[in-house]
Order: sequence, then C-alpha cells, then structure tokens
Amino acid sequence: MVPALGRLNLRRVGVQGIRKPLSVQRDDRVVSLSTVFSVAVDLPSNRKGSDLSRNAELLAELVDETVTQPVASLESACSVIARELLVRHPYAMESEVVASADYFLRRGISSDRRSFEDYTLIAEAGASRTNAHEIQLRRWIGAEAVGMTACPCAMETARAKLEAEFPLLADPSLKELPIVSHNQRNRTRLTFEVGGDVEVEADAILDAIESAQSSPTYAILKRGDEAQVVLNAHRHPKFVEDVLRDLLASLPKRFPALPDGAEVDARTKSEESIHKYDVVASHQVTMGELRRQLAA
Amino acid sequence: MVPALGRLNLRRVGVQGIRKPLSVQRDDRVVSLSTVFSVAVDLPSNRKGSDLSRNAELLAELVDETVTQPVASLESACSVIARELLVRHPYAMESEVVASADYFLRRGISSDRRSFEDYTLIAEAGASRTNAHEIQLRRWIGAEAVGMTACPCAMETARAKLEAEFPLLADPSLKELPIVSHNQRNRTRLTFEVGGDVEVEADAILDAIESAQSSPTYAILKRGDEAQVVLNAHRHPKFVEDVLRDLLASLPKRFPALPDGAEVDARTKSEESIHKYDVVASHQVTMGELRRQLAA
Amino acid sequence: MVPALGRLNLRRVGVQGIRKPLSVQRDDRVVSLSTVFSVAVDLPSNRKGSDLSRNAELLAELVDETVTQPVASLESACSVIARELLVRHPYAMESEVVASADYFLRRGISSDRRSFEDYTLIAEAGASRTNAHEIQLRRWIGAEAVGMTACPCAMETARAKLEAEFPLLADPSLKELPIVSHNQRNRTRLTFEVGGDVEVEADAILDAIESAQSSPTYAILKRGDEAQVVLNAHRHPKFVEDVLRDLLASLPKRFPALPDGAEVDARTKSEESIHKYDVVASHQVTMGELRRQLAA
Amino acid sequence: MVPALGRLNLRRVGVQGIRKPLSVQRDDRVVSLSTVFSVAVDLPSNRKGSDLSRNAELLAELVDETVTQPVASLESACSVIARELLVRHPYAMESEVVASADYFLRRGISSDRRSFEDYTLIAEAGASRTNAHEIQLRRWIGAEAVGMTACPCAMETARAKLEAEFPLLADPSLKELPIVSHNQRNRTRLTFEVGGDVEVEADAILDAIESAQSSPTYAILKRGDEAQVVLNAHRHPKFVEDVLRDLLASLPKRFPALPDGAEVDARTKSEESIHKYDVVASHQVTMGELRRQLAA
Repeated sequence: MVPALGRLNLRRVGVQGIRKPLSVQRDDRVVSLSTVFSVAVDLPSNRKGSDLSRNAELLAELVDETVTQPVASLESACSVIARELLVRHPYAMESEVVASADYFLRRGISSDRRSFEDYTLIAEAGASRTNAHEIQLRRWIGAEAVGMTACPCAMETARAKLEAEFPLLADPSLKELPIVSHNQRNRTRLTFEVGGDVEVEADAILDAIESAQSSPTYAILKRGDEAQVVLNAHRHPKFVEDVLRDLLASLPKRFPALPDGAEVDARTKSEESIHKYDVVASHQVTMGELRRQLAA
Repeated sequence: MVPALGRLNLRRVGVQGIRKPLSVQRDDRVVSLSTVFSVAVDLPSNRKGSDLSRNAELLAELVDETVTQPVASLESACSVIARELLVRHPYAMESEVVASADYFLRRGISSDRRSFEDYTLIAEAGASRTNAHEIQLRRWIGAEAVGMTACPCAMETARAKLEAEFPLLADPSLKELPIVSHNQRNRTRLTFEVGGDVEVEADAILDAIESAQSSPTYAILKRGDEAQVVLNAHRHPKFVEDVLRDLLASLPKRFPALPDGAEVDARTKSEESIHKYDVVASHQVTMGELRRQLAA
Repeated sequence: MVPALGRLNLRRVGVQGIRKPLSVQRDDRVVSLSTVFSVAVDLPSNRKGSDLSRNAELLAELVDETVTQPVASLESACSVIARELLVRHPYAMESEVVASADYFLRRGISSDRRSFEDYTLIAEAGASRTNAHEIQLRRWIGAEAVGMTACPCAMETARAKLEAEFPLLADPSLKELPIVSHNQRNRTRLTFEVGGDVEVEADAILDAIESAQSSPTYAILKRGDEAQVVLNAHRHPKFVEDVLRDLLASLPKRFPALPDGAEVDARTKSEESIHKYDVVASHQVTMGELRRQLAA
Repeated sequence: MVPALGRLNLRRVGVQGIRKPLSVQRDDRVVSLSTVFSVAVDLPSNRKGSDLSRNAELLAELVDETVTQPVASLESACSVIARELLVRHPYAMESEVVASADYFLRRGISSDRRSFEDYTLIAEAGASRTNAHEIQLRRWIGAEAVGMTACPCAMETARAKLEAEFPLLADPSLKELPIVSHNQRNRTRLTFEVGGDVEVEADAILDAIESAQSSPTYAILKRGDEAQVVLNAHRHPKFVEDVLRDLLASLPKRFPALPDGAEVDARTKSEESIHKYDVVASHQVTMGELRRQLAA
C-alpha cells in the first residue's frame, strides 16, 4: 500500500484513562467495578486520522448499559469492546483494550476475622482483521495482589550471627525456630491468555498469587493474629525469584484448561524494608514451554 | 475595605510544580538540586487578578542565576523568593514559597560500604507585609528520610507463641534474643521553623530522623550486612508512635538554638508489611511546648 | 497532666489508605463506591500506643455491613465512624475520618449524548470528647470535578495582535467573536462543613463547581459538539481567580441552609496548556464571612 | 539445559528505582543529573537466586565515582553498567539497564525570556553474552518533552458555527484568521537505538519533539508572549496522529547516522482540555522501514 501524501501508518491511536462503573454479575449479586479503560486501533498510512469520538461513544454504550444488563466479567466486556472497535473503525486492522479495576474479596486469617481485602483486576483483549470478513480475538485475564515476603538470606546470616552471641540457639531443638529477617510488602501481578471459551475466575488467580508469596496480608489482625502472619511468612521465606518461580510452577495444575499457546506474563516486586529501592523479577513464557520445563 | 464589584479576596493565588535546577554551595563544591517550587500570594478583593507571569519570571531570575552564583541553601533561596514576591506583587499582603528537592548523602553501614543514599529536602518561607514599609519573614526547613521499623507488639506475641512450641526459648540466656516480627519501610518527615539567623544543616535533620527509626536503610548491603541491619531494627522495635515521640523528644538537645516560638511539624508513615494499608502518626507543636512537656 | 515516663502526646495516630467498597442507597438503587478511608485518633501522653487494630476492625464492621444495609451517604458513614472511634479508643479525645471515592454521574452536552462522567466524592468527620459523657461531631462534605478554563488575558492580547494582521476583525459586527486563547483542564475541589442535620447532595456540589469553570467537559462529543464546548469555554474565559470567586459567590444561594459558622475550603488548579506548570488558587472562609463580604 | 531441581529460568531479576546523582560533562561544565536507575539480569534455571547486592554495589561504584570523573552522557553510563552487569553476574546471559533523569535546558520564546525548561532524559542499554567470551551491546537514547497541541477538527467545526453567527467571518480576508479550538498539554516521548559509536545529543531529540508539537511551551511568558504561543499553536493545529507522524517523518533527516536496523519507539499523549481522559498514539518501527515508507 502506497502512503497517500507520504503519510505513515501508526500502530496505536486511541483514548486512555476513561473511568467507568462496570456492572458485573457475580453469583447471586451485581457488583460495580470502578474500571479504567484504555482502547486503541491502528491507523493505516492512507487515512488522516482516527475517529476518536467513536471510542468514547462505544465505551459509553457498552459499559453504561451494564447498569441494567450486567456483564459476566471484566474480560468479557473487553472482548466485546475489542471486536466492536474493529466494526466502528472499518479502516483499522487491529484493536486493543486494556482495563483494570479495584476488586474486593472477603478474606481473613480466620473465619471470624473476614473483611474486604483490596485487589486489582486486569483484563486485556485484542482483535485482528484476518481478511475482509473475519475478526480474530485474543484475550488476557489477570490480577494483582499485595502480600508479604520474608528474606531467606538475611535469615540465614542472622542465625549465624545470633548463634555466636546466644550459643544455646544452636541446640537441635531450636533448629526450626523462625529467625529474624527483613520482610516487606510484595506486589505480584499475573496475566495470561485465555482461549476461546475457557473461563477463569479472578479469585483463582488471586489464590495462585497469594499462595506464592511468603504470606497473604489482612486488614484485620488482632494481637495474636499478627504473630501468626509473621510466623507464616518466616516459615516460608522467599526471594522475588522464589515467588515468581513458585507462581509459574503452580499454573499448569491450577489452570489445566489453558492451551499450550497461551502467553503468560508474571511480575513481582518486593518493597524492601532494608533498602530504599525495590527488588523485582519478571518472566514471559507460554503455557506449553512452562509445561515442558516442569516435566523435564 | 469594600470589595470592588463585589469581588472576594483570596488567600492564595500562584503557580505550582515549577521544576528548576538550584545550585547550592556546600563546603568545597557546588551541588545542583533538582527542585520543585510552588509560590503564591494573596489577592485582595479590590483587584481582579494576580500577575502570575511575575512568579515564573522571579523564579527564573533568582534560580537560574544560581548557576553562576550558588546560594547558601534551599531555605535561603526560599526566603529571598518570599520577600521578592511581595516586592513584585505590591497589592499582596502575604506570600508563600514551598520547595522540595532530591538530596543525596554518602552513607553506609560501614566506612567501606558508603554510597549516595536518596533523601528529600524541604524548605518553606512566608512573608507578610506588616505595614506599608515592613516585610516580616518566617521560614521553615525540613527533610524526609526512608528508614525501617520493626513492630514491638508482634514481636512480643510471637515470642509467646514460639515459647509454647520451643520450650528452650524460655531459657534466661535467650531473654535478649531478637524475635521475629513484621518490619517495613518507614517514611518520616520533619519540618520546623527557624528564627532570623539560625542556620540548620539538612544533614542534622536527617540524622535526627534516622536515629528515631528502628534502623536506617542502605543501598549497599553485602551478605553479613543485611543481618546487621535486621538485628539493629529488631533491637529497636518501634511503633509509629515511638518513632514520632523519640524524634520530637530529641529536638531540644539537637537544635538548642531554635526559639520557643518555633513551630514543629512531624509526620511518620509505616508501610506495614502485614497489611495492605499504612499506619501513620503526626504532631504539631512549638519548641516551647515541647521543652515544657519534656521538663515535666 | 504529667506525661508518664516523659512521654509526649500526639495529635493523630491511625491508619491511612484502606480501600473498601461502600454501599450507598441512592433513590431507587444501591451504588457501590470504591472508597479510600483514613482514620486517626489522638494519643494522650500517659498512654504508650494506640490500638490500631480497632480501626481496621471498626471499618470492616461498619463498611462491610453496608453490603446488606446500605448507608445514606459517604458522609453519614464518616460520621458514624468518627463517633465510634471515640467509643473504641476510650483514651482518645478526638477522632478524624477522611474518605474519598470515585463517583459517576450520567451527564452529557445534550440528552442523547449522556454517559457516566467521572468525579471524586469527599467526606470528612471529626469527633471531640467535650467531657466524660458527651461527643461533639463536626462533618464536612465535598467533591472534585475536572472541567475546562480558557484564559481571558491571552484572548485579549491575541485579539490585539490579530486586529493588526486582519483589519476587518475590528469591525463592530465581530466584537463578540470568540478569539483564540489557551485553554486547559481545570481541577476544582470544594468542601464545606455541614451542620447537625443539614443534608447536601453531592450532585449539587458538582453543579456548583462545573458552573464556575469556563465549561464542563464530556466523554462523548461528536464533531459539532466539540465546537460547542470550545465556544462555551471561550465565551466564559476565566482565570483560576475567577473560577474560585464565582464558586464561592454562588454558595450562599445554592446552599442557604449552611450556618454562618460553617467552614468552606475551595481549591482550583489549571493545568496550563502554554506552561509546563500548574496555576492554582485556594481560599478558606466561613459561610458567615462569605455572606458579609457579598452583602457589602 | 535441564533445570536443576525443576527450577525455571527467569527473564529478569533486579533492582528498580535506585536514585543517584550522576555527574555528566557538558561542554564547559559538569551537570548533576538526579537519575533513577533500574537494572536486571536473567536467571538461568540451574541457579537458585540472583546476587542482587552486586547491582547496588556496581551502581554505587560507577555512579558515585562520576562525582570526581564525570561521564560523557547518561547513555554512556548505561552502556558501562550493562556490560559490567554481565561481568559481575557470570551466570547471566543478558542484562538490561533503564535510566531516566530530570533535565533542564535554557529556552525561551525570545532571547531575553530564556530560563530553564524542564524535560526528561531517557537511556537504556542491554548486553548479551553471545558466547563464552563476547558481550554484545545494544543501547537506546531518548527524551520526553511537554508541549502543546491545538485540535484541527474542533477548529474547523467552530469556524462553521461562527460563520453562521458572524457572516463577516466568511470574508476572504479572514480566511487565515486563527479560529478557537481546544488546546492542551501534550507529552511526547521518543527513544531510538543508537549504533556502536554514533553519538546523539539529547538536545537534538528535544528539538525534534518540540518541532512536531503544535507549539513548545515556556515558563516565562509576558502579556504579549502568551498570545504569540497561542497563535503559533493554532497555526499548527495537530491531532496526536499528526504529532507522531511529523516526529517520525523528521527522523531520517535529523539523525542521518542512525543505521537502518535501529529501533524507534515514539509515544504521544494529549491531556485533552474538553475531556477528562487522554488521547494517545504510539508507534514502533525501524529506521530502515521508516526510510522506505517515506521514500515511497
């Protein structure tokens, strides 16, 4: 295709940061997710501009009508929007939707301590026009959870120092005694591609993340509870490397329906208590590669 | 004064978030502080608008010329700007300048581990026109440091739980053994008013803050060093209440030249590792009241 | 009161940034507000620490139960929390609650262009223990809206320049022609104190703010609509000073039930298109003082 | 390679958000850039953890020593760090360094209005171990500038509306009269790959960006100057699509030394004055592809 007027094509043109209340049906009740959407389509070289008002209009129609007709999930809303973007921008070959929402789950260290914990839901969808009449859809689902990590390395060196100062600590009966270390907030985010009709619960993703951290964290912790979370974290000390590997390694069993071609993106950040900077790890892999590596 | 045209007076009209490179003379060398300024003056009811371009012009003149003529300190720059604001806005009765800057100090857990640690410098100045010919100046100086707190309460309850599981832990020789707790980043900020010609070093404020936290934190920590910081923090477990009280209680001795009328503002925040939310404490008091309370 | 152990009292100790889903009854339906709460109480000198777990517990009980029993408003929730804080912290004399929530209203430039616009709701409450048996409550309500300002000054100087270049522009028939200027996002926030049983609708506060800006802004604007918003803004060019004064001047008529003692806080920020920095104005005043000034 | 213990490899493990003062030699003087670094290396499956303390140590050594021995540029510092990361992490095959810094240039609408304008510098470097003895380096340089866009579409529809109301406006002599539109802050960022010994000045990148926006913006604008910026912007009305295409189209001439294989990443965001959300465009392309498209 020859660019008209020497114009260049552009990968993405769109709107970013539109906040909308998305009504989602969950079991027996409707929840309203305060959601931030970004949507974009590509722009061919022979077209001057993207009709941006269609994006806001489309979002308004689809999202606003969920007040009376709730959608099944954040990702199903994204899929509908991605597809509809290509309908309303007939010159575009690709569309992209990214959405994130505040999300709340009732959790607690025990059944009588439950309250709403605060998480982030993530969904993405992309549509491609394969030829004049077909639209191919890819979609991703994910979540982010704040939990806790305790450092295994500082724990080991602290034990060595303490045994020199407190000889009794070397007694075999104290071998399993949890030893002081630095611990901190850990923020872990997992997103993966979901195939055609595979449904994944956000709660299952959050479970996977929280199980990979040294410990989940909770809003309500009475006196004894604090110690229980602290002990739990120190009995599962983890580097960011460990959090990410344990999370990735758990995916094949937790999400067996995901196809080998599904892309996985995992990121974790520990806001180190002993440093002013963060420690991070990230990985991108397909479910198939993950299965092969774990079977090796 | 009768408002012309029914106009109302306004407390503050100005510009916010102007970033400038301020050159400051420190001992033997000039450092350039990447500084964000906000400046404002009041607007009387009989005047339609504030001449805002004078603010940017004044900042440009005073700050840009420090490239060739460095100022003594961030707060001396703020004082000059506050005074000059009333000169250039002759209708205004009050001016206000707030500035914050990235600041670096070479610190380390030992002399061979030193590197630049990252802090924030704060300075504020306010000028008032007392009558036609006099301008009264007040100025504040402050800083913020990220350090670490370890929780005394979880430490106590963890010991009780652990003694039940590891009876030997109750042995008198292990009474001083540091016990696991939650620890986390703590962000503490102190600002206080400084009198006419009192000079306060930012480094002394940062020392006061870091001494009040459970432990300072460092960029470079080799294997054994991590344990040392962890042990230091667990040997000085502190609630945010303790950080703030210890900081406030240290001020009369650390800054004896501050007059009784000097206002003090102290704030601390612990980014709790066991919760998704922060724990905070803050206090406002005069040096005189602080001295009275501590002498009681 | 003599400080036990030389301890100092502290103004505020509490938790910050707890995000919760607050269910609020609005006319015929329940909306869920994604709300961030910060709560604090004072700490007397004779007490070592504040029992912070009570704050999270209280918030969980009061906020989580709104799922089944929606509250009347964000500010009524804050009032209940402020009062209950003093019940659960019997040593405290004062409590403070600050809450902000994403808020959505269906608005549009015309009735067939309506969609959810994004705002922020604000509520604050403070309780004081006046003597052993009484608790006095003060509460504030507010909101923030993003709109648009066009600059009257650049418009005037642009006209002068343009008339020199296009003499016909000086024709009397073009006297009211809107002339180019810089225009930009304006973010205005108003909070005021509300008396015992005065009820104020958040929507009325947002109306007041949007009426004081050069123009409200909208998510959906088709071709002709964009020009209509642009013309509306240029026909009401405003400095930040004008936005704030017009907002303040409208309050006595819009909110006649507010008592003279009610505190008002108004802030506005224009994210200048011709500068990299923001222009701001702010004012604090009582309704009584405002009424007196406007009657002068 | 068979994962030891069933461990997975990870793409990136490192530290993020380390702020350091980097001393850079510029012509006749040394400037200190307040720089935020993030560095990472990959982790093979047969190794338990990444030695993170080496990252902070390496940064401290290389960056701190620039106080006495300034580096040539931010990107040369990144290259040295990327290479050294592979030396200090002998198990790693790839390293990545990302850095951004506050940057100031004296600019003005005229020579007597010059003052420091605030920009962001960006540099990235990646090193790969091609075989046991060789390290291959790739590096990117970039910058971000805040400028201004005026919308061509609203300008066109506003003219139509205004001509209906002010018939004289249709007079041929007023055909070039700039017409009201919405204008706003535009934030544009350009990064591109630079070959082995190609040196690119950050100022040249900022020139390219500012030339592609409707107008640069300035800290100091006296009365008449404001109108001049406004008129300049309205005489060069641009969609985000136009900003990005004009920027991309200017690169071959501005940076002829860049090889065909050099990757280019360009992003622009207009903080729309008539909406509460942003409008964005982005593109990724090689210099070769860009040259081919522009020659077509």
